[in-house]
Amino acid sequence: MAEHLVKSYDEQLSILTNTIAKMGALAEKQIKDATEALLTNDQEFVDEIVGKDDRIDELEKNIEAQVVDLITMRQPMAIDLRETVSAMKISGDLERIGDLAKNIAKRSRYVSVKLPDNIKKTIGAASEKVQKNLKLVLDAFVNRDAKVAEMVWNSDEEIDNLIDISMNSVTEFMEGEKNYIKPAAHLLFMSKNLERMGDHATNIAETVYYLVTGDDIEGDRPKGQSDILSGQ
Amino acid sequence: MAEHLVKSYDEQLSILTNTIAKMGALAEKQIKDATEALLTNDQEFVDEIVGKDDRIDELEKNIEAQVVDLITMRQPMAIDLRETVSAMKISGDLERIGDLAKNIAKRSRYVSVKLPDNIKKTIGAASEKVQKNLKLVLDAFVNRDAKVAEMVWNSDEEIDNLIDISMNSVTEFMEGEKNYIKPAAHLLFMSKNLERMGDHATNIAETVYYLVTGDDIEGDRPKGQSDILSGQ
Repeated sequence: MAEHLVKSYDEQLSILTNTIAKMGALAEKQIKDATEALLTNDQEFVDEIVGKDDRIDELEKNIEAQVVDLITMRQPMAIDLRETVSAMKISGDLERIGDLAKNIAKRSRYVSVKLPDNIKKTIGAASEKVQKNLKLVLDAFVNRDAKVAEMVWNSDEEIDNLIDISMNSVTEFMEGEKNYIKPAAHLLFMSKNLERMGDHATNIAETVYYLVTGDDIEGDRPKGQSDILSGQ
Repeated sequence: MAEHLVKSYDEQLSILTNTIAKMGALAEKQIKDATEALLTNDQEFVDEIVGKDDRIDELEKNIEAQVVDLITMRQPMAIDLRETVSAMKISGDLERIGDLAKNIAKRSRYVSVKLPDNIKKTIGAASEKVQKNLKLVLDAFVNRDAKVAEMVWNSDEEIDNLIDISMNSVTEFMEGEKNYIKPAAHLLFMSKNLERMGDHATNIAETVYYLVTGDDIEGDRPKGQSDILSGQ
């Protein structure tokens, strides 16, 4: 702990921000890889993805330790509690995104049937949009940019709509052939995972907005249209 | 904030513990009611359950405010950060349990087909076990009882096994009749919600154990057996 004493508060905050950015970049890569494992059905790739989730979990613990250090070493009046609470919240969301990506990778093992193009296309598009929103909202965090955070928050609706389309295609796929029911059940959960990742990016957007402005984003979270099976 | 100044640290902690216990009791009741809404298909009941989730969300905000007050008003060296970090974590888990119960209630609207007895029985049993574990782990929190927390942690496996059985029955139900596929897809998500509630109770068990002993529970989390479709 001694070395922390010589660091300035700003230096400590800057290290904390960098650790979160690093964790976010790993989570984003895991989403990309897990989706590719599903779409290419590459088993060796799955093990690699599952193994990498530990690194994300380690970074969460590292962030928690930094926050506890910050609160313990400084006078509480002299630190901005919004910074520390935000760091804890964002790392919690990133850890969950990592778990959801790992789960997509694991489930891809049970989806060895040839998927219809419309399902592949929709899931691929939803995954790309989730990756994009996550990247944007982490940049917004690093740059303390409330506008970009609000933009991400508003665009989660697009993900929800893609997930609705995906889930409907998957149940049609199930209805077409009894033998597809079990693999397709995995696809329903995988689609739901992508939607939940989008929600975590939206949580981060709310945290960043609050951190920068001290206010909550106005209005209710925008939601997809029909949204029955995705259950929002 | 002024009134807080005259309260002792122990009084503040005791109020925080009571708020968490109250939030937990509400979450437990929501699980019970949501399961009943599914099994009895009572639509009016669904609206009531959905409405009550706001109260759980309010309590989470109340707990966050109490924690920020605690850290801000006291010297950080004079407070036990484990207490405040634990309170934040437990209230986060309870908030998620509330959301998952609300989601079960909402989905019950789309499951108006007559369910086979084996599905009803397994989902009912899983729900009761989740309620029981949640009650036990909150009592463990109030009584600072690491042994009971560890017992809950070990018994989550029973919930996972019930969920596996439930998911297999649900996919068989789907295979039997095309028209059951959409309602049964909701049942898959509802079963998964119960499993996730069990995981949140397990998270709380880990938090309580750490709070009381300063250590992590040893070993890996016990998991159900086949666990393929539930995706653990």
